Amino acid sequence: MGFPVCLEGSRLVDSGNFNYSPTIARLIEELKKIPGIGRKSAQRISFYLLKSKKESALRLAQAIIDAKEKTRFCSQCNTVTEEDPCAICSGSKRDIKKICVVEEPFNIYSIEKTSLYNGLYHVLHGNLSPIMGIGPDELKLDGLFKRVSAGDVEEVILATSPTTEGNATAHYLTEILRKYKIKITRIALGLPVGADLDYVDSVTIARAFEGRTEC
Amino acid sequence: MGFPVCLEGSRLVDSGNFNYSPTIARLIEELKKIPGIGRKSAQRISFYLLKSKKESALRLAQAIIDAKEKTRFCSQCNTVTEEDPCAICSGSKRDIKKICVVEEPFNIYSIEKTSLYNGLYHVLHGNLSPIMGIGPDELKLDGLFKRVSAGDVEEVILATSPTTEGNATAHYLTEILRKYKIKITRIALGLPVGADLDYVDSVTIARAFEGRTEC
Repeated sequence: MGFPVCLEGSRLVDSGNFNYSPTIARLIEELKKIPGIGRKSAQRISFYLLKSKKESALRLAQAIIDAKEKTRFCSQCNTVTEEDPCAICSGSKRDIKKICVVEEPFNIYSIEKTSLYNGLYHVLHGNLSPIMGIGPDELKLDGLFKRVSAGDVEEVILATSPTTEGNATAHYLTEILRKYKIKITRIALGLPVGADLDYVDSVTIARAFEGRTEC
Repeated sequence: MGFPVCLEGSRLVDSGNFNYSPTIARLIEELKKIPGIGRKSAQRISFYLLKSKKESALRLAQAIIDAKEKTRFCSQCNTVTEEDPCAICSGSKRDIKKICVVEEPFNIYSIEKTSLYNGLYHVLHGNLSPIMGIGPDELKLDGLFKRVSAGDVEEVILATSPTTEGNATAHYLTEILRKYKIKITRIALGLPVGADLDYVDSVTIARAFEGRTEC
Protein backbone atom coordinates (compact mmCIF):
# COMPACT_ATOMS: atom_id res chain seq x y z
CA MET A 1 0.00 0.00 0.00
CA GLY A 2 2.83 2.43 -0.74
CA PHE A 3 5.16 4.13 1.65
CA PRO A 4 3.74 4.39 5.14
CA VAL A 5 3.42 8.00 6.18
CA CYS A 6 3.47 8.42 9.94
CA LEU A 7 3.43 12.19 9.97
CA GLU A 8 0.74 12.54 7.35
CA GLY A 9 -1.51 14.27 9.87
CA SER A 10 0.70 17.33 9.96
CA ARG A 11 0.06 17.94 6.27
CA LEU A 12 -3.68 18.12 6.78
CA VAL A 13 -4.89 21.67 6.58
CA ASP A 14 -8.29 22.98 7.49
CA SER A 15 -8.87 25.10 4.42
CA GLY A 16 -8.11 23.72 1.00
CA ASN A 17 -8.23 25.67 -2.21
CA PHE A 18 -11.55 24.05 -3.09
CA ASN A 19 -14.53 26.35 -3.07
CA TYR A 20 -18.19 25.85 -3.64
CA SER A 21 -19.67 27.58 -6.64
CA PRO A 22 -21.03 31.08 -5.82
CA THR A 23 -24.76 30.25 -5.54
CA ILE A 24 -24.10 27.24 -3.31
CA ALA A 25 -21.63 29.22 -1.19
CA ARG A 26 -24.20 31.99 -0.82
CA LEU A 27 -26.91 29.54 0.31
CA ILE A 28 -24.52 28.05 2.89
CA GLU A 29 -23.57 31.53 4.13
CA GLU A 30 -27.23 32.59 4.49
CA LEU A 31 -28.09 29.41 6.40
CA LYS A 32 -25.05 29.83 8.67
CA LYS A 33 -26.48 33.13 9.89
CA ILE A 34 -29.30 31.27 11.66
CA PRO A 35 -28.36 30.77 15.35
CA GLY A 36 -27.64 27.12 16.11
CA ILE A 37 -26.73 26.30 12.51
CA GLY A 38 -22.99 25.89 11.99
CA ARG A 39 -21.00 25.26 8.82
CA LYS A 40 -21.64 21.49 8.75
CA SER A 41 -25.38 21.82 9.28
CA ALA A 42 -25.57 24.63 6.72
CA GLN A 43 -23.77 22.39 4.21
CA ARG A 44 -26.07 19.45 4.89
CA ILE A 45 -29.20 21.56 4.63
CA SER A 46 -27.94 23.20 1.44
CA PHE A 47 -27.24 19.90 -0.24
CA TYR A 48 -30.53 18.49 0.98
CA LEU A 49 -32.27 21.43 -0.71
CA LEU A 50 -30.12 21.15 -3.82
CA LYS A 51 -30.97 17.46 -4.13
CA SER A 52 -34.65 17.76 -3.27
CA LYS A 53 -37.39 18.35 -5.80
CA LYS A 54 -37.51 21.89 -7.13
CA GLU A 55 -41.11 22.36 -5.90
CA SER A 56 -40.28 21.42 -2.34
CA ALA A 57 -37.27 23.78 -2.11
CA LEU A 58 -39.30 26.59 -3.66
CA ARG A 59 -42.14 25.87 -1.21
CA LEU A 60 -39.70 26.57 1.64
CA ALA A 61 -38.49 29.78 -0.02
CA GLN A 62 -42.10 30.89 -0.55
CA ALA A 63 -43.01 30.03 3.05
CA ILE A 64 -40.20 32.33 4.25
CA ILE A 65 -41.35 35.13 1.94
CA ASP A 66 -45.02 34.75 2.96
CA ALA A 67 -44.17 34.58 6.64
CA LYS A 68 -42.16 37.78 6.39
CA GLU A 69 -44.80 39.58 4.39
CA LYS A 70 -47.88 38.53 6.32
CA THR A 71 -46.68 38.69 9.90
CA ARG A 72 -45.99 41.58 12.25
CA PHE A 73 -45.62 42.11 15.99
CA CYS A 74 -48.82 42.19 18.05
CA SER A 75 -49.28 45.77 19.27
CA GLN A 76 -50.35 44.49 22.68
CA CYS A 77 -48.17 41.51 23.61
CA ASN A 78 -45.34 41.78 20.98
CA THR A 79 -45.68 38.21 19.73
CA VAL A 80 -45.36 37.51 16.02
CA THR A 81 -48.81 37.37 14.47
CA GLU A 82 -50.77 37.63 11.24
CA GLU A 83 -53.57 39.64 12.82
CA ASP A 84 -53.13 42.56 15.18
CA PRO A 85 -54.04 42.08 17.98
CA CYS A 86 -53.06 38.41 18.02
CA ALA A 87 -55.51 35.54 18.59
CA ILE A 88 -54.68 35.39 22.31
CA CYS A 89 -54.91 39.15 22.98
CA SER A 90 -58.23 39.31 21.12
CA GLY A 91 -59.55 36.01 22.54
CA SER A 92 -62.88 36.58 24.33
CA LYS A 93 -62.31 33.69 26.73
CA ARG A 94 -58.91 34.79 28.01
CA ASP A 95 -58.47 36.06 31.55
CA ILE A 96 -57.32 39.66 31.03
CA LYS A 97 -56.36 39.97 34.71
CA LYS A 98 -53.22 37.88 34.21
CA ILE A 99 -50.14 38.63 32.13
CA CYS A 100 -47.42 36.03 31.71
CA VAL A 101 -44.06 37.57 30.75
CA VAL A 102 -41.95 35.42 28.41
CA GLU A 103 -38.68 35.89 26.55
CA GLU A 104 -39.64 34.82 23.05
CA PRO A 105 -42.79 34.27 20.98
CA PHE A 106 -42.29 30.50 20.84
CA ASN A 107 -42.34 30.33 24.64
CA ILE A 108 -46.07 31.09 24.35
CA TYR A 109 -46.54 27.89 22.40
CA SER A 110 -44.81 25.82 25.12
CA ILE A 111 -47.07 27.29 27.80
CA GLU A 112 -50.26 27.03 25.71
CA LYS A 113 -49.53 23.34 25.11
CA THR A 114 -50.07 22.68 28.83
CA SER A 115 -53.68 24.02 28.59
CA LEU A 116 -53.29 25.23 32.19
CA TYR A 117 -52.94 28.94 31.63
CA ASN A 118 -55.72 31.12 30.32
CA GLY A 119 -54.37 34.62 30.76
CA LEU A 120 -52.55 36.97 28.41
CA TYR A 121 -48.86 37.20 27.53
CA HIS A 122 -46.16 39.77 27.11
CA VAL A 123 -43.10 38.98 24.98
CA LEU A 124 -39.87 40.76 25.96
CA HIS A 125 -37.89 39.62 22.92
CA GLY A 126 -34.87 38.78 25.01
CA ASN A 127 -33.46 39.04 28.49
CA LEU A 128 -31.31 41.55 30.29
CA SER A 129 -27.68 40.69 29.70
CA PRO A 130 -25.01 43.21 30.69
CA ILE A 131 -22.35 40.96 29.12
CA MET A 132 -24.10 41.08 25.74
CA GLY A 133 -24.87 44.76 26.17
CA ILE A 134 -28.62 44.17 26.46
CA GLY A 135 -30.13 46.63 28.91
CA PRO A 136 -33.76 47.51 29.71
CA ASP A 137 -33.94 49.75 26.61
CA GLU A 138 -33.33 46.78 24.32
CA LEU A 139 -36.34 44.87 25.69
CA LYS A 140 -40.00 45.56 24.98
CA LEU A 141 -40.86 46.74 28.50
CA ASP A 142 -42.86 49.94 27.97
CA GLY A 143 -45.91 48.11 26.67
CA LEU A 144 -45.93 45.89 29.75
CA PHE A 145 -45.84 48.84 32.16
CA LYS A 146 -48.58 50.56 30.15
CA ARG A 147 -50.78 47.48 30.30
CA VAL A 148 -50.22 47.11 34.04
CA SER A 149 -50.85 50.77 34.81
CA ALA A 150 -54.11 50.65 32.79
CA GLY A 151 -55.51 48.89 35.85
CA ASP A 152 -57.12 45.62 34.73
CA VAL A 153 -54.15 43.44 35.56
CA GLU A 154 -54.10 41.64 38.92
CA GLU A 155 -51.15 39.30 38.45
CA VAL A 156 -47.94 39.32 36.44
CA ILE A 157 -46.33 35.89 36.13
CA LEU A 158 -42.62 36.07 35.34
CA ALA A 159 -41.85 33.08 33.10
CA THR A 160 -38.37 33.97 31.89
CA SER A 161 -35.94 31.03 31.94
CA PRO A 162 -34.18 30.16 35.22
CA THR A 163 -30.82 31.24 33.75
CA THR A 164 -28.60 34.09 34.98
CA GLU A 165 -30.12 36.41 32.39
CA GLY A 166 -33.69 35.19 32.88
CA ASN A 167 -33.39 35.55 36.66
CA ALA A 168 -31.86 39.02 36.32
CA THR A 169 -34.75 40.05 34.08
CA ALA A 170 -37.29 38.67 36.56
CA HIS A 171 -35.59 40.52 39.45
CA TYR A 172 -35.53 43.75 37.46
CA LEU A 173 -39.21 43.47 36.54
CA THR A 174 -40.13 42.63 40.16
CA GLU A 175 -38.46 45.83 41.34
CA ILE A 176 -40.22 47.99 38.77
CA LEU A 177 -43.62 46.32 39.11
CA ARG A 178 -43.64 46.57 42.90
CA LYS A 179 -45.08 50.08 42.71
CA TYR A 180 -48.31 48.76 41.18
CA LYS A 181 -50.72 47.04 43.53
CA ILE A 182 -50.58 43.68 41.80
CA LYS A 183 -49.41 40.16 42.57
CA ILE A 184 -46.02 39.39 41.02
CA THR A 185 -45.15 35.70 40.73
CA ARG A 186 -42.25 33.66 39.31
CA ILE A 187 -42.77 30.19 37.79
CA ALA A 188 -41.61 27.45 40.16
CA LEU A 189 -38.11 26.02 40.11
CA GLY A 190 -37.83 22.34 40.94
CA LEU A 191 -37.34 18.87 39.53
CA PRO A 192 -38.65 18.30 36.02
CA VAL A 193 -41.46 15.69 35.93
CA GLY A 194 -39.98 12.23 35.39
CA ALA A 195 -36.50 13.27 36.53
CA ASP A 196 -34.30 10.87 38.49
CA LEU A 197 -33.10 12.60 41.69
CA ASP A 198 -29.65 11.09 41.13
CA TYR A 199 -29.22 12.97 37.89
CA VAL A 200 -30.54 16.37 38.92
CA ASP A 201 -27.99 19.07 39.85
CA SER A 202 -27.81 20.16 43.47
CA VAL A 203 -28.86 23.75 42.81
CA THR A 204 -32.13 22.48 41.32
CA ILE A 205 -32.63 20.06 44.23
CA ALA A 206 -32.02 22.93 46.68
CA ARG A 207 -34.64 25.05 44.89
CA ALA A 208 -37.06 22.10 44.84
CA PHE A 209 -36.69 21.85 48.65
CA GLU A 210 -37.17 25.59 49.14
CA GLY A 211 -40.28 25.55 46.99
CA ARG A 212 -41.82 22.39 48.46
CA THR A 213 -45.61 22.32 48.80
CA GLU A 214 -47.91 20.46 51.20
CA CYS A 215 -49.65 17.39 49.82
CA MET B 1 -49.26 30.24 47.14
CA GLY B 2 -52.71 28.65 46.67
CA PHE B 3 -53.68 25.03 47.01
CA PRO B 4 -50.80 22.63 46.45
CA VAL B 5 -51.48 20.38 43.50
CA CYS B 6 -49.50 17.15 43.72
CA LEU B 7 -51.04 15.51 40.67
CA GLU B 8 -50.83 18.56 38.46
CA GLY B 9 -48.50 16.71 36.11
CA SER B 10 -51.27 14.34 35.04
CA ARG B 11 -53.24 17.25 33.63
CA LEU B 12 -50.42 18.28 31.36
CA VAL B 13 -51.15 17.31 27.79
CA ASP B 14 -48.80 17.43 24.87
CA SER B 15 -51.10 19.12 22.40
CA GLY B 16 -53.13 22.08 23.48
CA ASN B 17 -55.75 23.82 21.42
CA PHE B 18 -53.33 26.61 20.59
CA ASN B 19 -52.22 26.78 17.01
CA TYR B 20 -49.81 28.97 15.15
CA SER B 21 -51.31 31.17 12.46
CA PRO B 22 -51.35 29.48 9.01
CA THR B 23 -48.28 31.18 7.48
CA ILE B 24 -46.15 30.54 10.57
CA ALA B 25 -47.39 26.93 10.79
CA ARG B 26 -46.53 26.44 7.10
CA LEU B 27 -43.00 27.80 7.58
CA ILE B 28 -42.47 25.46 10.56
CA GLU B 29 -43.81 22.50 8.54
CA GLU B 30 -41.54 23.26 5.57
CA LEU B 31 -38.49 23.55 7.84
CA LYS B 32 -39.37 20.31 9.62
CA LYS B 33 -39.03 18.44 6.33
CA ILE B 34 -35.27 19.06 6.37
CA PRO B 35 -33.51 16.00 7.83
CA GLY B 36 -32.03 16.75 11.25
CA ILE B 37 -34.46 19.59 11.95
CA GLY B 38 -37.17 18.63 14.43
CA ARG B 39 -40.18 20.58 15.67
CA LYS B 40 -38.23 22.59 18.26
CA SER B 41 -35.48 23.60 15.84
CA ALA B 42 -38.05 24.43 13.15
CA GLN B 43 -39.86 26.68 15.64
CA ARG B 44 -36.66 28.41 16.69
CA ILE B 45 -35.54 28.97 13.11
CA SER B 46 -39.00 30.22 12.12
CA PHE B 47 -39.11 32.75 14.91
CA TYR B 48 -35.55 33.80 14.23
CA LEU B 49 -36.58 34.52 10.63
CA LEU B 50 -39.81 36.21 11.71
CA LYS B 51 -37.88 38.47 14.07
CA SER B 52 -34.97 39.19 11.75
CA LYS B 53 -34.84 42.06 9.28
CA LYS B 54 -37.02 41.54 6.22
CA GLU B 55 -34.03 41.85 3.87
CA SER B 56 -32.07 39.12 5.60
CA ALA B 57 -34.97 36.62 5.55
CA LEU B 58 -35.67 37.42 1.91
CA ARG B 59 -31.95 36.99 1.13
CA LEU B 60 -32.20 33.42 2.43
CA ALA B 61 -35.37 32.76 0.39
CA GLN B 62 -33.67 34.17 -2.72
CA ALA B 63 -30.53 32.10 -2.08
CA ILE B 64 -32.69 28.94 -2.04
CA ILE B 65 -34.45 29.96 -5.26
CA ASP B 66 -31.18 30.84 -7.03
CA ALA B 67 -29.48 27.67 -5.86
CA LYS B 68 -32.34 25.57 -7.23
CA GLU B 69 -32.45 27.43 -10.52
CA LYS B 70 -28.74 27.69 -11.25
CA THR B 71 -27.50 24.28 -10.14
CA ARG B 72 -27.77 20.83 -11.69
CA PHE B 73 -26.00 17.48 -11.35
CA CYS B 74 -22.60 17.12 -13.03
CA SER B 75 -23.06 14.73 -15.95
CA GLN B 76 -19.75 13.04 -15.08
CA CYS B 77 -19.48 12.77 -11.29
CA ASN B 78 -23.09 13.57 -10.20
CA THR B 79 -22.12 16.31 -7.78
CA VAL B 80 -24.25 19.43 -7.56
CA THR B 81 -22.74 22.13 -9.74
CA GLU B 82 -23.43 25.36 -11.56
CA GLU B 83 -21.39 24.36 -14.61
CA ASP B 84 -21.51 21.00 -16.29
CA PRO B 85 -19.01 19.36 -16.07
CA CYS B 86 -18.15 20.60 -12.59
CA ALA B 87 -14.94 22.46 -11.70
CA ILE B 88 -13.23 19.25 -10.56
CA CYS B 89 -14.22 17.11 -13.56
CA SER B 90 -13.11 19.87 -15.95
CA GLY B 91 -10.00 20.79 -13.93
CA SER B 92 -6.88 20.51 -16.10
CA LYS B 93 -4.63 19.69 -13.14
CA ARG B 94 -6.68 16.77 -11.80
CA ASP B 95 -5.39 13.20 -12.05
CA ILE B 96 -8.00 11.49 -14.27
CA LYS B 97 -6.60 8.05 -13.39
CA LYS B 98 -8.17 8.12 -9.94
CA ILE B 99 -11.85 8.18 -8.99
CA CYS B 100 -12.88 8.56 -5.37
CA VAL B 101 -16.40 7.25 -4.71
CA VAL B 102 -18.37 9.21 -2.09
CA GLU B 103 -21.92 9.13 -0.76
CA GLU B 104 -22.90 12.77 -0.98
CA PRO B 105 -21.73 15.94 -2.75
CA PHE B 106 -20.60 17.56 0.51
CA ASN B 107 -18.22 14.66 1.17
CA ILE B 108 -16.15 16.06 -1.72
CA TYR B 109 -15.66 19.26 0.25
CA SER B 110 -14.38 17.33 3.30
CA ILE B 111 -11.84 15.48 1.17
CA GLU B 112 -10.77 18.56 -0.82
CA LYS B 113 -10.11 20.41 2.43
CA THR B 114 -7.26 18.00 3.16
CA SER B 115 -5.47 19.05 -0.09
CA LEU B 116 -4.08 15.50 -0.30
CA TYR B 117 -6.20 14.11 -3.12
CA ASN B 118 -5.95 15.30 -6.67
CA GLY B 119 -8.09 12.78 -8.56
CA LEU B 120 -11.72 12.84 -9.68
CA TYR B 121 -14.87 11.92 -7.76
CA HIS B 122 -18.05 9.97 -8.21
CA VAL B 123 -21.09 10.77 -6.07
CA LEU B 124 -23.47 7.86 -5.39
CA HIS B 125 -26.19 9.98 -3.74
CA GLY B 126 -26.67 7.48 -0.96
CA ASN B 127 -25.67 4.03 0.17
CA LEU B 128 -27.12 0.56 -0.26
CA SER B 129 -29.60 -0.07 2.51
CA PRO B 130 -31.90 -3.09 2.28
CA ILE B 131 -33.74 -1.91 5.42
CA MET B 132 -34.58 1.43 3.81
CA GLY B 133 -35.33 -0.27 0.49
CA ILE B 134 -32.33 1.29 -1.25
CA GLY B 135 -30.84 -1.15 -3.76
CA PRO B 136 -28.25 -0.66 -6.52
CA ASP B 137 -30.90 0.83 -8.84
CA GLU B 138 -31.45 3.73 -6.45
CA LEU B 139 -27.76 4.75 -6.56
CA LYS B 140 -25.96 6.50 -9.39
CA LEU B 141 -23.76 3.55 -10.33
CA ASP B 142 -24.02 3.32 -14.13
CA GLY B 143 -21.95 6.43 -14.70
CA LEU B 144 -19.18 5.02 -12.52
CA PHE B 145 -19.02 1.75 -14.44
CA LYS B 146 -19.05 3.66 -17.73
CA ARG B 147 -16.17 5.84 -16.60
CA VAL B 148 -14.15 2.83 -15.43
CA SER B 149 -14.81 0.81 -18.60
CA ALA B 150 -13.73 3.79 -20.73
CA GLY B 151 -10.20 2.74 -19.76
CA ASP B 152 -8.39 5.77 -18.33
CA VAL B 153 -9.04 4.90 -14.67
CA GLU B 154 -6.34 3.06 -12.75
CA GLU B 155 -7.67 3.28 -9.21
CA VAL B 156 -11.08 3.55 -7.59
CA ILE B 157 -10.95 4.70 -3.97
CA LEU B 158 -14.06 3.73 -2.00
CA ALA B 159 -14.66 6.54 0.49
CA THR B 160 -18.15 5.66 1.71
CA SER B 161 -18.57 5.96 5.49
CA PRO B 162 -17.47 3.05 7.70
CA THR B 163 -21.11 2.35 8.66
CA THR B 164 -23.09 -0.83 7.92
CA GLU B 165 -24.56 0.78 4.81
CA GLY B 166 -21.30 2.41 3.69
CA ASN B 167 -19.40 -0.87 4.12
CA ALA B 168 -22.10 -2.81 2.25
CA THR B 169 -21.87 -0.33 -0.60
CA ALA B 170 -18.08 -0.61 -0.67
CA HIS B 171 -18.29 -4.44 -0.72
CA TYR B 172 -20.86 -4.37 -3.51
CA LEU B 173 -18.76 -2.01 -5.62
CA THR B 174 -15.62 -4.08 -4.99
CA GLU B 175 -17.38 -7.18 -6.35
CA ILE B 176 -18.62 -5.40 -9.48
CA LEU B 177 -15.38 -3.51 -10.14
CA ARG B 178 -13.20 -6.62 -9.80
CA LYS B 179 -13.78 -7.48 -13.47
CA TYR B 180 -11.94 -4.34 -14.56
CA LYS B 181 -8.16 -4.43 -14.32
CA ILE B 182 -7.91 -1.59 -11.83
CA LYS B 183 -6.78 -1.09 -8.26
CA ILE B 184 -9.71 -0.89 -5.83
CA THR B 185 -8.95 0.67 -2.44
CA ARG B 186 -10.94 1.53 0.67
CA ILE B 187 -10.04 4.51 2.88
CA ALA B 188 -8.30 3.41 6.08
CA LEU B 189 -10.13 2.66 9.30
CA GLY B 190 -8.31 3.55 12.49
CA LEU B 191 -8.04 6.05 15.30
CA PRO B 192 -9.00 9.60 14.49
CA VAL B 193 -6.04 12.00 14.84
CA GLY B 194 -5.95 13.42 18.37
CA ALA B 195 -8.07 10.60 19.81
CA ASP B 196 -7.43 9.24 23.28
CA LEU B 197 -7.07 5.44 23.09
CA ASP B 198 -9.14 5.14 26.27
CA TYR B 199 -12.15 6.67 24.58
CA VAL B 200 -12.04 4.85 21.26
CA ASP B 201 -14.36 1.85 20.81
CA SER B 202 -12.76 -1.58 20.57
CA VAL B 203 -13.92 -2.26 17.00
CA THR B 204 -12.05 0.84 15.84
CA ILE B 205 -8.96 -0.17 17.86
CA ALA B 206 -9.11 -3.64 16.30
CA ARG B 207 -9.26 -2.12 12.81
CA ALA B 208 -6.41 0.25 13.68
CA PHE B 209 -4.28 -2.78 14.63
CA GLU B 210 -5.20 -4.67 11.48
CA GLY B 211 -4.33 -1.68 9.33
CA ARG B 212 -1.10 -0.75 11.11
CA THR B 213 1.73 0.56 8.92
CA GLU B 214 5.53 0.46 9.35
CA CYS B 215 7.17 3.65 10.53
